Amino acid sequence: MHYGLALIGFGGVNRGLVEVLLLKKQILKQNFDIELSIVSISDMYLGYAADENGLDLEALKDLPSEKGALSIFPNGKTESDNDAAICAKATDIVVEATFTNPNDGEPAVSHCRTAISNEKHIVTTNKGPVALFGNELGELAQAQNTGFEFEGTVMSGTPVLGFVSSNLKACTINGFRGILNGTANFVLQQVEGGASMTDAIKIAQELGYAEADPTADIEGFDVMLKVVILANQLLGANLKTKDVIREGIVNISEDKIRSAKEEGKHWKLIGQASINDDGTISASVSPICLSAEDTLSSISGPINAIAFDTDLLGTVMVSGAGAGRIETAYALLADILKIDEMKKSK
Amino acid sequence: MHYGLALIGFGGVNRGLVEVLLLKKQILKQNFDIELSIVSISDMYLGYAADENGLDLEALKDLPSEKGALSIFPNGKTESDNDAAICAKATDIVVEATFTNPNDGEPAVSHCRTAISNEKHIVTTNKGPVALFGNELGELAQAQNTGFEFEGTVMSGTPVLGFVSSNLKACTINGFRGILNGTANFVLQQVEGGASMTDAIKIAQELGYAEADPTADIEGFDVMLKVVILANQLLGANLKTKDVIREGIVNISEDKIRSAKEEGKHWKLIGQASINDDGTISASVSPICLSAEDTLSSISGPINAIAFDTDLLGTVMVSGAGAGRIETAYALLADILKIDEMKKSK
Repeated sequence: MHYGLALIGFGGVNRGLVEVLLLKKQILKQNFDIELSIVSISDMYLGYAADENGLDLEALKDLPSEKGALSIFPNGKTESDNDAAICAKATDIVVEATFTNPNDGEPAVSHCRTAISNEKHIVTTNKGPVALFGNELGELAQAQNTGFEFEGTVMSGTPVLGFVSSNLKACTINGFRGILNGTANFVLQQVEGGASMTDAIKIAQELGYAEADPTADIEGFDVMLKVVILANQLLGANLKTKDVIREGIVNISEDKIRSAKEEGKHWKLIGQASINDDGTISASVSPICLSAEDTLSSISGPINAIAFDTDLLGTVMVSGAGAGRIETAYALLADILKIDEMKKSK
Repeated sequence: MHYGLALIGFGGVNRGLVEVLLLKKQILKQNFDIELSIVSISDMYLGYAADENGLDLEALKDLPSEKGALSIFPNGKTESDNDAAICAKATDIVVEATFTNPNDGEPAVSHCRTAISNEKHIVTTNKGPVALFGNELGELAQAQNTGFEFEGTVMSGTPVLGFVSSNLKACTINGFRGILNGTANFVLQQVEGGASMTDAIKIAQELGYAEADPTADIEGFDVMLKVVILANQLLGANLKTKDVIREGIVNISEDKIRSAKEEGKHWKLIGQASINDDGTISASVSPICLSAEDTLSSISGPINAIAFDTDLLGTVMVSGAGAGRIETAYALLADILKIDEMKKSK
């Protein structure tokens, strides 16, 4: 089976996908009978390029990060053209990897809507559309018989959504607790080690873990989006971001963090949701002091983890990288494989 | 789709499967369009019962553990009849859950061979046939176009084999390290807490974690079988048990265990295998002193965990129950669902 991919956004993640496709070309063909080509790329900074026979992956891998760089390709343009990329006949799967907009999800939400209404499959690493309109987009996709997959929105390529849908599918998930932001986790560990909260955030920024504005990580907004995605997808909830109680890490005193550590305990920013006895869902992001025995307490630095509370297996936990361009690109590939399976089983 | 199950062995695990089938009957029908009935049971102590329309699950759930108890069913017998159960026309899937024989794998190996040669699918929780003859049985099953699944041989129902085959299938697995025996893990923790090795083993026996003869757990034989199963299945190896370097936990001094703990380190019995640069596989079971930062170091008590070393995702870890009748029965159900998927995708 051959799939033409339209890449919307050509930052770290979709550049990572180019590398992954180069690395895995043979295995995809041999093991899964899949050929993937990139038939278009649209990026607000780099411009636009399209080739229904597939753009050259080696050239894409080495593309400089210069304004309009995609215009070097035949028929390339210095301006983006998202709609052309999404709607082209050669496009089978839209790969949405633009930046997350936590307010209204745009322009990614529009990319998703355009893709689905044009009967294109869509895979995305963008938390905006999934956290804000995930259930609605999922229903639209189902009605159009297209795939809408988003493994990379939570814990990069570490399998979470796919883990549940493949491996826990005969279990009932009653809730989950997770460490879903590596930056906050790293900062807390630095404070445990003696740094002030302010210095710890600076170190995280210097190491490239935290953005120039660290609010999303430190105040729990990033985890809030992930909790909504997980609760809606895994617990059958219909949460909005306002339904999640949110508290960041900056108000925990440094002394509290350090004296906990001396007792073998660890403060962690925990995102969680669970089904109440009356069927409602409670969801929160908040700093919690975990005992040494807690499976999540030893999750350190940029590692993320999620513990599922299941009916038949008790607590099952998955941990792994929470970020990274190649790791997140792997999530896109996993989503594409899922769409391929869906198509082949029909 | 309807499947008739023949249960070979009716101890804790297959009794657990009866409970799971009762619990999940509706979901299996609604979500997966699957109906499962138990068309026969053969057990060396309880005897034999068969009904091509399905034995009554409630009656099976309450079956007393008395010699010949299965003879209460119409046409039931006080003696087992494994071949009759395996070969019956009504049998689609053989569920092998007899005790592990680590020496020659019998009689489970024969059950597997008989099932496969009669074109029956087989799911098993028995480490014997899989560790000793897994590759050969897998090839036989493939040639006969039957399923041969064994998720429950490692970490009970916590997804391990299914995790890799579903979720890491586009990764290369370069190796793994795991805590794969809850009894050894529990004993080491008791010693950390001040108990002598001898007393710790006694406590494990009193709590039902360890067998009357604790050798398999304490000396690493149980983990050795699991390492062979994982290496052969996940790394494409063809290991025999003699290829695994094995060392149990009894020779670590109690002082060493306790002083490590004071430094935040933990001695764990680690089963591991990895692919060497020349393509050969190294595999071992041995006690290792893990630093606090090691993802495996906080895995406590009866919990098991495995960390996979992958090319694209770095280290990915799964942890959960390492034993338990319902948990292990879930593995059988997961295997049955996998066989159903295989059938439906053809």
